[in-house]
Amino acid sequence: MDKATVIGMVLGTAAIIIGIFLGGSILGFIDPPSIFIVIGGTISVLLISFPMNDIKSLIKIMKNAFLDNQKSMKETIELLVQLSERARKEGILAIEKVLEDIDDAFLSSGLRLAVDGSDPEAIKESMEIELQNIETRHKRGQQILDTGGAMAPAFGMIGTLIGLVNMLKTMSDPSSIGPSMAIALLTTFYGAVMANLIFIPLNTKLQGITAREVNQKELIIDGVIGIQGGDNPRMLRAKLETYLPPSLREKE
Amino acid sequence: MDKATVIGMVLGTAAIIIGIFLGGSILGFIDPPSIFIVIGGTISVLLISFPMNDIKSLIKIMKNAFLDNQKSMKETIELLVQLSERARKEGILAIEKVLEDIDDAFLSSGLRLAVDGSDPEAIKESMEIELQNIETRHKRGQQILDTGGAMAPAFGMIGTLIGLVNMLKTMSDPSSIGPSMAIALLTTFYGAVMANLIFIPLNTKLQGITAREVNQKELIIDGVIGIQGGDNPRMLRAKLETYLPPSLREKE
Amino acid sequence: MDKATVIGMVLGTAAIIIGIFLGGSILGFIDPPSIFIVIGGTISVLLISFPMNDIKSLIKIMKNAFLDNQKSMKETIELLVQLSERARKEGILAIEKVLEDIDDAFLSSGLRLAVDGSDPEAIKESMEIELQNIETRHKRGQQILDTGGAMAPAFGMIGTLIGLVNMLKTMSDPSSIGPSMAIALLTTFYGAVMANLIFIPLNTKLQGITAREVNQKELIIDGVIGIQGGDNPRMLRAKLETYLPPSLREKE
Amino acid sequence: MDKATVIGMVLGTAAIIIGIFLGGSILGFIDPPSIFIVIGGTISVLLISFPMNDIKSLIKIMKNAFLDNQKSMKETIELLVQLSERARKEGILAIEKVLEDIDDAFLSSGLRLAVDGSDPEAIKESMEIELQNIETRHKRGQQILDTGGAMAPAFGMIGTLIGLVNMLKTMSDPSSIGPSMAIALLTTFYGAVMANLIFIPLNTKLQGITAREVNQKELIIDGVIGIQGGDNPRMLRAKLETYLPPSLREKE
Amino acid sequence: MDKATVIGMVLGTAAIIIGIFLGGSILGFIDPPSIFIVIGGTISVLLISFPMNDIKSLIKIMKNAFLDNQKSMKETIELLVQLSERARKEGILAIEKVLEDIDDAFLSSGLRLAVDGSDPEAIKESMEIELQNIETRHKRGQQILDTGGAMAPAFGMIGTLIGLVNMLKTMSDPSSIGPSMAIALLTTFYGAVMANLIFIPLNTKLQGITAREVNQKELIIDGVIGIQGGDNPRMLRAKLETYLPPSLREKE
Repeated sequence: MDKATVIGMVLGTAAIIIGIFLGGSILGFIDPPSIFIVIGGTISVLLISFPMNDIKSLIKIMKNAFLDNQKSMKETIELLVQLSERARKEGILAIEKVLEDIDDAFLSSGLRLAVDGSDPEAIKESMEIELQNIETRHKRGQQILDTGGAMAPAFGMIGTLIGLVNMLKTMSDPSSIGPSMAIALLTTFYGAVMANLIFIPLNTKLQGITAREVNQKELIIDGVIGIQGGDNPRMLRAKLETYLPPSLREKE
Repeated sequence: MDKATVIGMVLGTAAIIIGIFLGGSILGFIDPPSIFIVIGGTISVLLISFPMNDIKSLIKIMKNAFLDNQKSMKETIELLVQLSERARKEGILAIEKVLEDIDDAFLSSGLRLAVDGSDPEAIKESMEIELQNIETRHKRGQQILDTGGAMAPAFGMIGTLIGLVNMLKTMSDPSSIGPSMAIALLTTFYGAVMANLIFIPLNTKLQGITAREVNQKELIIDGVIGIQGGDNPRMLRAKLETYLPPSLREKE
Repeated sequence: MDKATVIGMVLGTAAIIIGIFLGGSILGFIDPPSIFIVIGGTISVLLISFPMNDIKSLIKIMKNAFLDNQKSMKETIELLVQLSERARKEGILAIEKVLEDIDDAFLSSGLRLAVDGSDPEAIKESMEIELQNIETRHKRGQQILDTGGAMAPAFGMIGTLIGLVNMLKTMSDPSSIGPSMAIALLTTFYGAVMANLIFIPLNTKLQGITAREVNQKELIIDGVIGIQGGDNPRMLRAKLETYLPPSLREKE
Repeated sequence: MDKATVIGMVLGTAAIIIGIFLGGSILGFIDPPSIFIVIGGTISVLLISFPMNDIKSLIKIMKNAFLDNQKSMKETIELLVQLSERARKEGILAIEKVLEDIDDAFLSSGLRLAVDGSDPEAIKESMEIELQNIETRHKRGQQILDTGGAMAPAFGMIGTLIGLVNMLKTMSDPSSIGPSMAIALLTTFYGAVMANLIFIPLNTKLQGITAREVNQKELIIDGVIGIQGGDNPRMLRAKLETYLPPSLREKE
Repeated sequence: MDKATVIGMVLGTAAIIIGIFLGGSILGFIDPPSIFIVIGGTISVLLISFPMNDIKSLIKIMKNAFLDNQKSMKETIELLVQLSERARKEGILAIEKVLEDIDDAFLSSGLRLAVDGSDPEAIKESMEIELQNIETRHKRGQQILDTGGAMAPAFGMIGTLIGLVNMLKTMSDPSSIGPSMAIALLTTFYGAVMANLIFIPLNTKLQGITAREVNQKELIIDGVIGIQGGDNPRMLRAKLETYLPPSLREKE
């Protein structure tokens, strides 16, 4: 799991909780009806706006993102160069035996096409359509997080308006104004925290994840085409390493 | 009808009503003049901004969207492959007999052109102009929902300003300040609910609907061209299935 | 004149006036100095930002827009087809006699070029430069309305700040706070009404008008080229009707 | 100098001053520390954000803009046509004698290249690089005005927050609350006036100036190429007049 | 170090501190828990949103930016012309001896490729990939500063909401309202200062730095290609000087 993300989430929550403790008690910030308005309202807009499948797909994407089981670019290049060496020595069909050991579904399905003898153009097209599908799914996920980040504060404000109207209608006892107003403000607080500590940072993170995943898949496409074409492994490595920052490239 | 949308609308309304009930009475939130200012103002701006036809067209588009009578991509592919098989065995003219059974107007008008012997380029151009017309209509619909989502809060604020000015002008009796201010805030509340529970989510939903409809129509264009060209049904299926996510494709 | 626009303007004004009447008197909402700050400020920024010619040109464009003396697409097609029939029977020079009866300056100047024997490329280029000039003028008009829609609320806020500072400086008599604050809020009210009932809807409307006018002018260019080229009138009609939604096309 | 701009600036300042006078005294709106926070803060951000050269360059651009010593498009065309007539009759070298009388540096340096016998491609490329440099400088100027328009209100708000905190800390004497709060609001007032009466309108104006200047320079490039190529002066005029709106073109 | 930036930072800080001093004491503006909420919250969102490497890379970029050890465009041109003269007289291999004296890593690695005899296309491609890597790193840095500029005010508002709720809950002693509210507003103040005096101006500055660095690297690429191709040094200078504003070009 991505350490910086965990540290960030813990630190962010801590900053808010400590801020609360220093001036009052945490209990004063928990109000179930207010939580219901903000979370219920935000979820309801997501349900209206997006098909169920897109929402489920986002949850899956985010889970993968946190598990961070993505191979590093460097390891992927090593794997592709090894496969290229094998294919060169023992022929492309030798790849078939190791297909089962490859746990990247995108790479193994590309290699299967190569082993089956499809022509390079067809392999490339097929892999690129796959890549586009992944991008489209991620983009929809970003739209959902975007909508969440806009709706949580909106329902926070709606909740505060409800609280204010209720308070003002029955403003007979001045001593009750303070606590009523405090509760009215809680929905705005919940909305701001949900948007700024959850939806907006996860959206930024997902953008970065998408960029890296697309980059890695493009590397794999170049690698598979090179393996099928019987490229010299040393040349293939040089070509694939242009995807790395200079400091990570193999010194010759 | 789309289940998630209904659940979302019910949940959203429930969140707001329960929020109101817990702190006061629902009656305190119904003020006909305030409703008139916000709804009247929003409708008036829509009437100034858009021709009547565009507004009527939007209502029709949204109704279709909720009835969700659109065939799934998978069913559409099945239908196109069946038609291709028939055209291959019995000739393209055999399609004419089943034209009446096809309830998708876009597909049947495309097939009629094919049966009438128009050349593929002309069929494609004619169907694409049709598709563009649909996109333009949807885009105008999105503009209307966009304007509604901006104008409802604007007239909410105008209504609150009217209420505040009226209240402040006659601020002789301090005990009446609370209730007057409560009513002034109601228009802001109405505007926020209209924008965030109706206009903005329907706009997002319409964007998704447009993307799916355009995708399906492009599939149909590819299918009709394939049927007319006498493509091998198995090849046609493979080509059309690139429109599906891999998990839904027919395993060979 | 465009009925929906008139209804919208009347309804919008009514919504605001009725809202005022129900809680106070219309007189309480008229404060000449406040009107001067908001309208004066907005006009002053428009004068600084745009050359006088652009502002005059916008007024002319909007006037035409409301008179709505634009021929419908359908009528324009009929006229072009008639002219094409005449040109085919009696020769292109026969068009010259009817040029004076055509009240669309863009069409008649295009036809004059055709009658004078300019080659099609030159006619098209000349008409397209004209069309581009029209688009540029409209776009500048949209910028002006855009600026107005941003500046009216800005000067509304500036006026309210002036009112608040003046009120707070001399806050000796608590009973005068209410009315002073009411007047301070009036500029914000004026700014919001000017932006949301005038500038923003007229801007949206102008966008629609521009789109339709450009579309119609493109139709006319295609028509004039067809007439000069001696196209078959039936073919010309079919070509021009692709500009119409299917429901309005002539059934064969 | 551009009359509308001067009228706009006078009117805008008048609207604000009259608004102040009607409800209080102008002295109540002058508070040196508040002025220092807003102007100092805005200038400090501009110094951090942009290199000194860009800021100096903006001041020069704006000064030229107000002096409005730019030749009108029509005059420029007349000049280019005259030069073309002379070059045709007396040869391109005759232009050299009048080079000193031409006060447009862009035009005279272009003509010098033509007189020196550079080939048309080289002249065009050299003049276009020059034009691009001008555009880049103007664009940076727009960024500076943009930043100013965002920072003035931001430091206005920071100043108000400082004033509020100071006031609230020492809220012993209720009668002093009003005047303290008035002073706190002054920075917000200064920021709003600076942004909406200076930075934002000058930015819009600069955009218009850039568009016109680029257009005029493109006209000059076409003119110089035509003069060097020995174009027929009547043809050259017709070509250059497509830059004018139809109403300003020479009737034949 | 860039003088204007330092002056800007000192002036901005001074404007705020003097503003505070004139109405109260600087101690009243230091509240450790408030500082913890705003800085902690902003840092936590940056940790969630971006991988650690990108954040470290931004710090390095900004440090270089302030040290301003970048050669001026003019010096870079002089150096390239000198190298070109040497390469022309003594052959390209003579460059190898001076490679160690060149402290610009981008230039020296490009020259090494030239000395090693790579063909111009390969040198160009390799240097452009390098340039793209630099741009990508800078763009990520801009995203981080952008997020910081949005999150600081957001956590400022969250902190103020926490303070307000705590204050309102225990509003028994009216005399404590003022100071409590002052502390609640401090987080908003911190957020506004952090965004407007640090994140936003540094982001604008970084944009300018990126533009200049890309421009300089493109100049170097052109220069290296020219040196390898054995261009005439005078011609090379003329070509490279198109990167300079006219006033800085060598007069012939």
